[in-house]
Amino acid sequence: MERRILLVSSSRVWGSGYLEHAAEEIRATLGGARSLLFVPYALADWAAYTENVARHFPLREVRVAGIHEASDPAAAIREAESLFIGGGNTFRLLDKLYALGLLEPIRQRVAAGMPYLGSSAGSNVATISIKTTNDMPILEPPSFEALGLVKFNLNPHYLDPDPSSTHMGETREERIRQFHEENEPPVVGLREGAMLSIRGEEIWLRGTQGARLFRRGQEPLEVVSGTRLNELVGA
Amino acid sequence: MERRILLVSSSRVWGSGYLEHAAEEIRATLGGARSLLFVPYALADWAAYTENVARHFPLREVRVAGIHEASDPAAAIREAESLFIGGGNTFRLLDKLYALGLLEPIRQRVAAGMPYLGSSAGSNVATISIKTTNDMPILEPPSFEALGLVKFNLNPHYLDPDPSSTHMGETREERIRQFHEENEPPVVGLREGAMLSIRGEEIWLRGTQGARLFRRGQEPLEVVSGTRLNELVGA
Repeated sequence: MERRILLVSSSRVWGSGYLEHAAEEIRATLGGARSLLFVPYALADWAAYTENVARHFPLREVRVAGIHEASDPAAAIREAESLFIGGGNTFRLLDKLYALGLLEPIRQRVAAGMPYLGSSAGSNVATISIKTTNDMPILEPPSFEALGLVKFNLNPHYLDPDPSSTHMGETREERIRQFHEENEPPVVGLREGAMLSIRGEEIWLRGTQGARLFRRGQEPLEVVSGTRLNELVGA
Repeated sequence: MERRILLVSSSRVWGSGYLEHAAEEIRATLGGARSLLFVPYALADWAAYTENVARHFPLREVRVAGIHEASDPAAAIREAESLFIGGGNTFRLLDKLYALGLLEPIRQRVAAGMPYLGSSAGSNVATISIKTTNDMPILEPPSFEALGLVKFNLNPHYLDPDPSSTHMGETREERIRQFHEENEPPVVGLREGAMLSIRGEEIWLRGTQGARLFRRGQEPLEVVSGTRLNELVGA
């Protein structure tokens, strides 16, 4: 079976319910799956997080179970019909995936066609590394290397520079330029409302708001929803 | 000699020149030193960064030299009259300090009274860890542990939540709350314009704009310039 991956910038967009803006893409990605294994490790309270997602997941017919309730989380991955990794702190999330030995089981199942949904931190860990997260490094994972389901980096919640700002901290664009001073991979700056839909090796930009594509040594490029990204990210 | 440390939130505040807002505190911290060893490792172009600082440093009588020009950087630290670590990317900076074995020489000289100036990333690395930086993790230092000149964490460029924002990414306060889900140390959220001045073991908040103090399990506390912080941060 071909790969089915959906990487959402943020679970909420202003004025809309939990994942409501992504409901149709989620339905298409899940392809009829009726149960979803949820990974809540990016937040501190796994039970509350899972309960919240189960209550508000936009597809009412899908049964949501938290991976933290499984006695063997790796086995839960191997048996899951579909997987959703939620947002929160990317460092905490990746650290836990390493601690429980979940990266390789996830890679194998996704390659074999298990639907993968990621939001925010859950989208970051789907890429080659977490080096373009916005989160604070509140703990140290053994490595910044992530699942590598796609061969580029993502910046979720991408924000355009605000010309009226009086704040002197780096803009998101400046931070990504610093990333490219040290690293090669393209970075897709996914604005809230935007998402990447992957079928097999095909990568498509979906949703609203579009994306900003950053490639080393090149000017940033504006990408609109509906664009096939493969050539642009060299994949 | 007692310790002389100045940790500035940002080198620039809106509408003011390079470190201009901190000039009097810098003068008091340097205490007559006529030469300054500058550490440019947080940015990619060390020569351009050093030249820029040498040209715009607010104390015209102080001679600025870049540590990257020294054949033995650790020896340059041991011989420096005063030290300034500039801002940029905190991960890149700390990685280089580890690679060159500079943390211990800096700790020893600061304990012996060598004036230390830090700005933004240079303030972050002065604390116990870089776990409350705002920067992207563009490369992996061997550890997040930093110089430990003070026994708490700093968040430079601290931004108050914007009640009118439609952005769904975490506020700075939410990110610091996540830090306290995993870590114990207090976090001083230093607004742009604010700085910490340390003499011996005395820690004072100086500058403008004040700070927001975050302690695990407690409500955030507003701190005004002129406050002695020792009791508040348990130091």
